[in-house]
Amino acid sequence: MSDAFVPEFPTTPAPAMEWDAWGVAESRRHLSAQVTDLLQQALGVSAEQSPPPAEADATLRESALAPNLVAELRELLGADNVRTDTASRLRHSGGKSTPDLLRRKATEPQDAPDAVLLPGTHNEVMALLRFCAAEGVAVVPFGGGTSVVGGVDPVRGRYAAVVTLDLRRLDALVDLDPVSGVATLQAGVTGPQAEQVLGAHGFSLGHFPQSFQFATIGGFAATRSSGQASAGYGRFDDMVEWIRVATPAGSLDLGRGPASAAGPDLRELFVGSEGTLGIITEVGLRVHPVPERTAYQAWSFPDFETGAAALRSVVQSGSAPTVMRLSDEAETGINLALSGDIGGDSPTAGCLAITTFEGTDAHVDARYAEATTLLAAVGGTALGEGPAKSWEHGRFDAPYLRDALLNAGAIAETLETATRWSNLSNLRTAVTTALTESLTAQGTPAIVMCHISHTYPTGASLYFTVVCAQAADPLAQWATAKRAAGDAIVAAGGTITHHHAVGVDHRPWMESEVGPLGGRILRAVKDAIDPAGILNPGKLIP
Amino acid sequence: MSDAFVPEFPTTPAPAMEWDAWGVAESRRHLSAQVTDLLQQALGVSAEQSPPPAEADATLRESALAPNLVAELRELLGADNVRTDTASRLRHSGGKSTPDLLRRKATEPQDAPDAVLLPGTHNEVMALLRFCAAEGVAVVPFGGGTSVVGGVDPVRGRYAAVVTLDLRRLDALVDLDPVSGVATLQAGVTGPQAEQVLGAHGFSLGHFPQSFQFATIGGFAATRSSGQASAGYGRFDDMVEWIRVATPAGSLDLGRGPASAAGPDLRELFVGSEGTLGIITEVGLRVHPVPERTAYQAWSFPDFETGAAALRSVVQSGSAPTVMRLSDEAETGINLALSGDIGGDSPTAGCLAITTFEGTDAHVDARYAEATTLLAAVGGTALGEGPAKSWEHGRFDAPYLRDALLNAGAIAETLETATRWSNLSNLRTAVTTALTESLTAQGTPAIVMCHISHTYPTGASLYFTVVCAQAADPLAQWATAKRAAGDAIVAAGGTITHHHAVGVDHRPWMESEVGPLGGRILRAVKDAIDPAGILNPGKLIP
Repeated sequence: MSDAFVPEFPTTPAPAMEWDAWGVAESRRHLSAQVTDLLQQALGVSAEQSPPPAEADATLRESALAPNLVAELRELLGADNVRTDTASRLRHSGGKSTPDLLRRKATEPQDAPDAVLLPGTHNEVMALLRFCAAEGVAVVPFGGGTSVVGGVDPVRGRYAAVVTLDLRRLDALVDLDPVSGVATLQAGVTGPQAEQVLGAHGFSLGHFPQSFQFATIGGFAATRSSGQASAGYGRFDDMVEWIRVATPAGSLDLGRGPASAAGPDLRELFVGSEGTLGIITEVGLRVHPVPERTAYQAWSFPDFETGAAALRSVVQSGSAPTVMRLSDEAETGINLALSGDIGGDSPTAGCLAITTFEGTDAHVDARYAEATTLLAAVGGTALGEGPAKSWEHGRFDAPYLRDALLNAGAIAETLETATRWSNLSNLRTAVTTALTESLTAQGTPAIVMCHISHTYPTGASLYFTVVCAQAADPLAQWATAKRAAGDAIVAAGGTITHHHAVGVDHRPWMESEVGPLGGRILRAVKDAIDPAGILNPGKLIP
Repeated sequence: MSDAFVPEFPTTPAPAMEWDAWGVAESRRHLSAQVTDLLQQALGVSAEQSPPPAEADATLRESALAPNLVAELRELLGADNVRTDTASRLRHSGGKSTPDLLRRKATEPQDAPDAVLLPGTHNEVMALLRFCAAEGVAVVPFGGGTSVVGGVDPVRGRYAAVVTLDLRRLDALVDLDPVSGVATLQAGVTGPQAEQVLGAHGFSLGHFPQSFQFATIGGFAATRSSGQASAGYGRFDDMVEWIRVATPAGSLDLGRGPASAAGPDLRELFVGSEGTLGIITEVGLRVHPVPERTAYQAWSFPDFETGAAALRSVVQSGSAPTVMRLSDEAETGINLALSGDIGGDSPTAGCLAITTFEGTDAHVDARYAEATTLLAAVGGTALGEGPAKSWEHGRFDAPYLRDALLNAGAIAETLETATRWSNLSNLRTAVTTALTESLTAQGTPAIVMCHISHTYPTGASLYFTVVCAQAADPLAQWATAKRAAGDAIVAAGGTITHHHAVGVDHRPWMESEVGPLGGRILRAVKDAIDPAGILNPGKLIP
């Protein structure tokens, strides 16, 4: 809509993650003696730190892509954008869940895409899809590779070969409409890159999921991502005004203006489609001015139920902080122990809640006053800025801690769901019980922690973190616990995923989520768009 | 989610609309001599009031439903719930657009459904759909019958017979979850009935479109309705947490909890599906406490662009009144003339804006203060409560005025669109010009008025009202003007409809809205759910 905007590119390159761990090497965490002692005493985790595997020891299944196809792909994209070397294939062999990282430690040959393709334009993505549909090659789209549900696994489906489409070269801000507050970003732009290119114009997207530092705009859209500031700026799907999708059957440009009554909202078929219905190449996103100010306040509540009721009173008032979250008793206690912050201004019991408020001075003051009154009225004790600023400072660190625990012989994994307020406590108990019982029965008693990180007028999300000792076969151990948790979520009326998406890992529950007819509808849409079934086989669609 | 809620039924019966006009007879408007003089002088409308046609003079096409099918339907539903009498068929022969009412004045036999069916349960709707699919009978769902886009026209499609499913017997509040603020209402509950049954529990839905007094929950969902309080409470699609749909291929229950990342949001395929993909029978809706207080403030802006910039500054601040609307210069002037309020506290020039604020005292005070500061800063002059209260008092009256104008020999019709803020002025000019030029070329110069009634951070709706003299063939006259307006909307980048839906009237532009592949996807979904193609033929799907 804006006149002749010249595309802009981030100057900060997208960081490449380690092949066998979350994030970048310089941010790796090491556990203190205090923590390893705690792990040993409480959970029986052997304190022996196993060295991470060496990249040179990893072996991959041979590339199954015929040399003539590689040559034709190089013709299409340029030789440098078709990669079959081991390092490239290894770095696209899956996501970053705990099972993913456990599998990467294996010594037998690992699965990996047969080639990694780096298209540079929407039209190149279209050409690749036509080529792969004609030649019978499965296609896995890849943004930041941060999936924790198997969403980028190199599944071949009915085909002998699978390629991964890495979208990192689609990294431009292609349009900015400052009057309407709409930015059009290409799919490969990462979270920090988006904030950089928008910040130069005084705008911010305000989408800060835990994967922020590595994940991409296309991935956020394809997985219905939700960021830590969702109370203030909405979920990612709320931000999507327009979307461009490349499919084997043609291109789609969906979304006209801020709202429409022109039939079903087809954007909502492709947001959350996880690469099974098309490759998202550009997204028009609602952005907002960089906030003038941020106010912080942490709160202590005597128990989870009281804290949840307090958060509910704020979000149902029609007003909300930018960030609003509540840790349960277990998470509050463990975080305190891990941070070594005993004696600081953190609570030593009960539940910690964090609120932040962003915007203009007047907006921040009004929201802060409103939330403070409501939270105090429902039993909260204000703790000051400290714990809220500490949370913000460390908010992208949890996956590094997870990796350190993994290397120390523990399982550390997360899962999440959402439900109505009236069912929240029931669901939390059901999932906690299922995880605790499953892992205890396997001889590895667990600590199960939970927090609310996303609130809505009608309900909230629940995010669980589980820590226990690794059993002899940790993959089988976690699969059993995960199955128990998923079954408990469905039985207790939760959604199988609030923001991690479906991928491979949640697919067994997808039919219970949408019903048999919902599954048929998804398959009918896929058959119409992708009759050859090349798009991200084995994911999402039941 | 709530325990054993006993269904509750409204005590106020749903009012039946006149067969040949909007609404009920006792609310009919009569034009003053001042207005008829104005119409004659300004637009050349002959002041002769033509008497409305008599119901006894209306003739219908013979019912094409075979007697054995009527008998079988009576077996399914009970004799009283299968109606083939002329009065019932006539009252289901279409919606309430100006062309609908012009057609109802015709003396030749009119089209009408072959029978009107009144199912009382979801399972009866399912049984009817199976029956009609097997027997080859087209099915038109009917709520309040307020469509202004041909959405309830008795189109037969490929079939010889068509029945209308009137959902008025599905009129229960089937569940209320007061903690989560979610009410489950059946499809046939009207706007006032919803407020009545919810109000008894201290809740309100807060959905007040112009059709409020007659339209139903099912219709609101099926057409992506948007109410006058959308700035405060959201569009109807924002309120839908859960939806139950009856289809020939089975039942669907869609929506788990407040938000989910479990794939495409299939609710969004059925919200806005206008009866072409299934019959919505129940909807779980976000509700809010009945507001403690309402504050009102009207504003005057020197021109439309300044007023639009002021509204934009408020909605982009992340704060919004409950109602916020802006009339352009023409609408402001005409409304003033029609109300005879010259010399009152309304502005005599410029553009009138209305704001209202609902909620708790603290919420209202904070929002009022924030909006007042912003609107004044962008050039607004506060006018006090008067014009805002007047607007609220008369806010459901416009269709009655339309009918009076129609009977006085004028055409009065409305159409609407939406776009980004940066394109709003361009779109308003394009549509105004297209309508003015088309009607002038036909020898009937028009007054074209416009207002913004729905605002979003990224854009707003535009609602146009057109008044001119009727030509010899007013149906052809308006069809020409409507075509010019629709083409102008598409060319200028607007959506073909912001809240009236697609129906028959906007279907020619549907493919330009979603693209050829979008059309194919809609047809693929329909083929999967409704292979016989019985559901609301000729509507929506391109």
